[in-house]
Amino acid sequence: MAGKLKNGWKGRDVISSLDFTRESFELLFNASEEFAEGARARARARSDLLRGKVVATAFFEPSTRTRLSFSSAAAKLGASVIDLSTEVSSLAKGESFSDTLAMLDSYSDIIVLRHPSEGAALYASEICKHPVVNAGDGSQHHPTQAMLDLFTILRLKGRVDGLNYLFVGDLRYSRTVSSLLFALTRYKPGRVTLTSPPALGLKPETRSVLVRYGMSVREEQNIERSVESADVIYVTRLQKERIPDQVEYQKLKGSYRLTEGLLEATKADCIVMHPLPRTEELPTSLDASPKAAYMRQAGFGVPVRMALLSLILGVA
Amino acid sequence: MAGKLKNGWKGRDVISSLDFTRESFELLFNASEEFAEGARARARARSDLLRGKVVATAFFEPSTRTRLSFSSAAAKLGASVIDLSTEVSSLAKGESFSDTLAMLDSYSDIIVLRHPSEGAALYASEICKHPVVNAGDGSQHHPTQAMLDLFTILRLKGRVDGLNYLFVGDLRYSRTVSSLLFALTRYKPGRVTLTSPPALGLKPETRSVLVRYGMSVREEQNIERSVESADVIYVTRLQKERIPDQVEYQKLKGSYRLTEGLLEATKADCIVMHPLPRTEELPTSLDASPKAAYMRQAGFGVPVRMALLSLILGVA
Amino acid sequence: MAGKLKNGWKGRDVISSLDFTRESFELLFNASEEFAEGARARARARSDLLRGKVVATAFFEPSTRTRLSFSSAAAKLGASVIDLSTEVSSLAKGESFSDTLAMLDSYSDIIVLRHPSEGAALYASEICKHPVVNAGDGSQHHPTQAMLDLFTILRLKGRVDGLNYLFVGDLRYSRTVSSLLFALTRYKPGRVTLTSPPALGLKPETRSVLVRYGMSVREEQNIERSVESADVIYVTRLQKERIPDQVEYQKLKGSYRLTEGLLEATKADCIVMHPLPRTEELPTSLDASPKAAYMRQAGFGVPVRMALLSLILGVA
Repeated sequence: MAGKLKNGWKGRDVISSLDFTRESFELLFNASEEFAEGARARARARSDLLRGKVVATAFFEPSTRTRLSFSSAAAKLGASVIDLSTEVSSLAKGESFSDTLAMLDSYSDIIVLRHPSEGAALYASEICKHPVVNAGDGSQHHPTQAMLDLFTILRLKGRVDGLNYLFVGDLRYSRTVSSLLFALTRYKPGRVTLTSPPALGLKPETRSVLVRYGMSVREEQNIERSVESADVIYVTRLQKERIPDQVEYQKLKGSYRLTEGLLEATKADCIVMHPLPRTEELPTSLDASPKAAYMRQAGFGVPVRMALLSLILGVA
Repeated sequence: MAGKLKNGWKGRDVISSLDFTRESFELLFNASEEFAEGARARARARSDLLRGKVVATAFFEPSTRTRLSFSSAAAKLGASVIDLSTEVSSLAKGESFSDTLAMLDSYSDIIVLRHPSEGAALYASEICKHPVVNAGDGSQHHPTQAMLDLFTILRLKGRVDGLNYLFVGDLRYSRTVSSLLFALTRYKPGRVTLTSPPALGLKPETRSVLVRYGMSVREEQNIERSVESADVIYVTRLQKERIPDQVEYQKLKGSYRLTEGLLEATKADCIVMHPLPRTEELPTSLDASPKAAYMRQAGFGVPVRMALLSLILGVA
Repeated sequence: MAGKLKNGWKGRDVISSLDFTRESFELLFNASEEFAEGARARARARSDLLRGKVVATAFFEPSTRTRLSFSSAAAKLGASVIDLSTEVSSLAKGESFSDTLAMLDSYSDIIVLRHPSEGAALYASEICKHPVVNAGDGSQHHPTQAMLDLFTILRLKGRVDGLNYLFVGDLRYSRTVSSLLFALTRYKPGRVTLTSPPALGLKPETRSVLVRYGMSVREEQNIERSVESADVIYVTRLQKERIPDQVEYQKLKGSYRLTEGLLEATKADCIVMHPLPRTEELPTSLDASPKAAYMRQAGFGVPVRMALLSLILGVA
């Protein structure tokens, strides 16, 4: 149908950033823009867009931020949310994942899934007749986070192309990093730099995807050197449990912390992003800086997810 | 009032299948039919039917399927759900059941209750001014499950009367089995056959209700013989904890499993139902068979509960 | 803006009963009156008042009654609720309170907060751009409970001024008691009497606030004497964990129990209030008495919170 041809979003699953073209992203961001900017009168009109629709959230791994921003997005569009999460522990001993998915599929219009296992969202999309949105699975994919990250860059820097990107922290297990890198293959980024402890560098699988799409990245272990030319610094947590040697961990933690001194060494219009929650890698003393973009980034989760839900459910 | 005389549903409690006449069931199924079939335009209109109404769900025993299908039904009609379940554990050490019910009664328009104790729903209906819907209590009553089971039979077989029914598995502790049997006393079923381990046969209390209503059932321990003439096979789980001897359990489990071979021995237009969740008694290899009705059965939970909520709240 | 000048409620935080004038209370109670009395047709119209608005509930301490009555109030006005509570345990080990608040602030239009720490709501109101409603923090403040308590008195006694008040039980750690006492400083109560075990009397800080506002209270340890002249008896729980000596606790428990005998000794038109949940201090044998106001009091939680939400969000 026309709508479908036009936007490619209606009724589709969202499994990986790699499933989307630049044009699809741009269509999404145009819609997000409207939701972000809406006047009060329009906010009220929008509260009717998804009236009667049911969004199922199924979080087999906790994620306050992602779950609540999807819930808020649904609410602002007039949709209702049914939430499986509280039962997850009892499911553990109970029914099969595929029977659980079939149940959600028959009770809702769209399923938002978070799962610890690689490939869970793709598997779910094969079971479910309704669209499945991957809200994070395994260690590589979290496409809606990548979408709100790109939208943040567009809003705050005006463009995605030609900027220098720096990724700092745990690049191995962070699905937000790999998802954003995958999404960037649809654009023409400037220099992409990776700064991480050696043991927490990009996975070979992730790297080979980037190579396939002709995107080159370079490694730079010295954070003082790497921050200088960045337009966008994307920081992630070092997770204690990833580094078996605790003496080593304490040392590493310090070296991947974005201090005020480092922030001063960045370009005047550089922005600092972080998927949150944060621990010590991003001191609260940075929050007042105009370079600190992470709180605005989190806030963009709502309009981007509003756009996503309404495009997929065919009303935007 | 006229509406009340006409349908007998408005404002009423739903405690047991035995509380309803065939006419009441038929009225419910006509309404369910409309909710199951609604065109998209009508779906939108319906999303306004219960606007401003509050449905309280109070599950003192977990039940993902029942809770979420009530939540989905409420959402599709524009009602909101307030859910006590997350607090149940803290209630355990806290206030009395009757004070908790009085609280829910003053915050909502209808209370959907699941409770492990026999008679809990009836007790609740005496405390609450608003209607109480029994979403399963004790080991005998789960009337809304019986309703969706009957609706499934009507939809897939065209009638309830004159069909041969076979119940397989734990017939002693399964409240879905006794509730459906009670509901069938309002119809004219053909042969009703029970196949279960001797220790898990119908309770004497259940059997005496059937006798009182003139419904005869026969027992047949050989599942191969019993499947042959059935039009509707209703399977339930054997629960490990019901059978103290684990060697015995392993043996029994095998004998009450609906294998592909058994399914082939059934009539060509036989349907297989199950309240779900399932364990090994119903292998997933059956799912593709046109005889497998259990997934459609689960899906009918939503329109039947939509009909129920709207009839009781006086808007259908 | 005019609305703001007129009512002083629009966009404001609700931290303590002491933040409000008598005029503000009266405006709230007039709005509550409408929500309590609404005809069915108006109930439907009201279900549109907060359409598209998102209320975040963040309970860092369980409180079924407060949380569900806010949820019910939001639902009846057409607002949606996003609830942080289920994640609270995981938050304990995770992100900072202020980052969590910033997240809620960007996902919702108003934040309803319950927290064990003194001053948590005030702190939250400094972090959040949206209004924060204190649903109980520390041991002194629970202003919306005080509001529904005053509304109950107004409805059942016709006035707040000139009545004799008796507070019985744990007056030291009960934030409902101090909040109502603070609110009463805006009125002209008759005699205010306190009856509690010596170790559980009013905190000096609470007492000094009362003194500052010129409200005198007197202590009377003999409950038989203190009930005689009361128009309003406000009972609270003695909490076992507050009294280290368990022999002492058993003795105290009996002395602060409102028995049928004591109730008979009260004035004919006296009312008994309790914030609930109750334990043994208020036997269920009193429930049938016309003097027992606590169930109606709990029910008034919904209209008062409806009024509060709609005044703050600027639609009442």
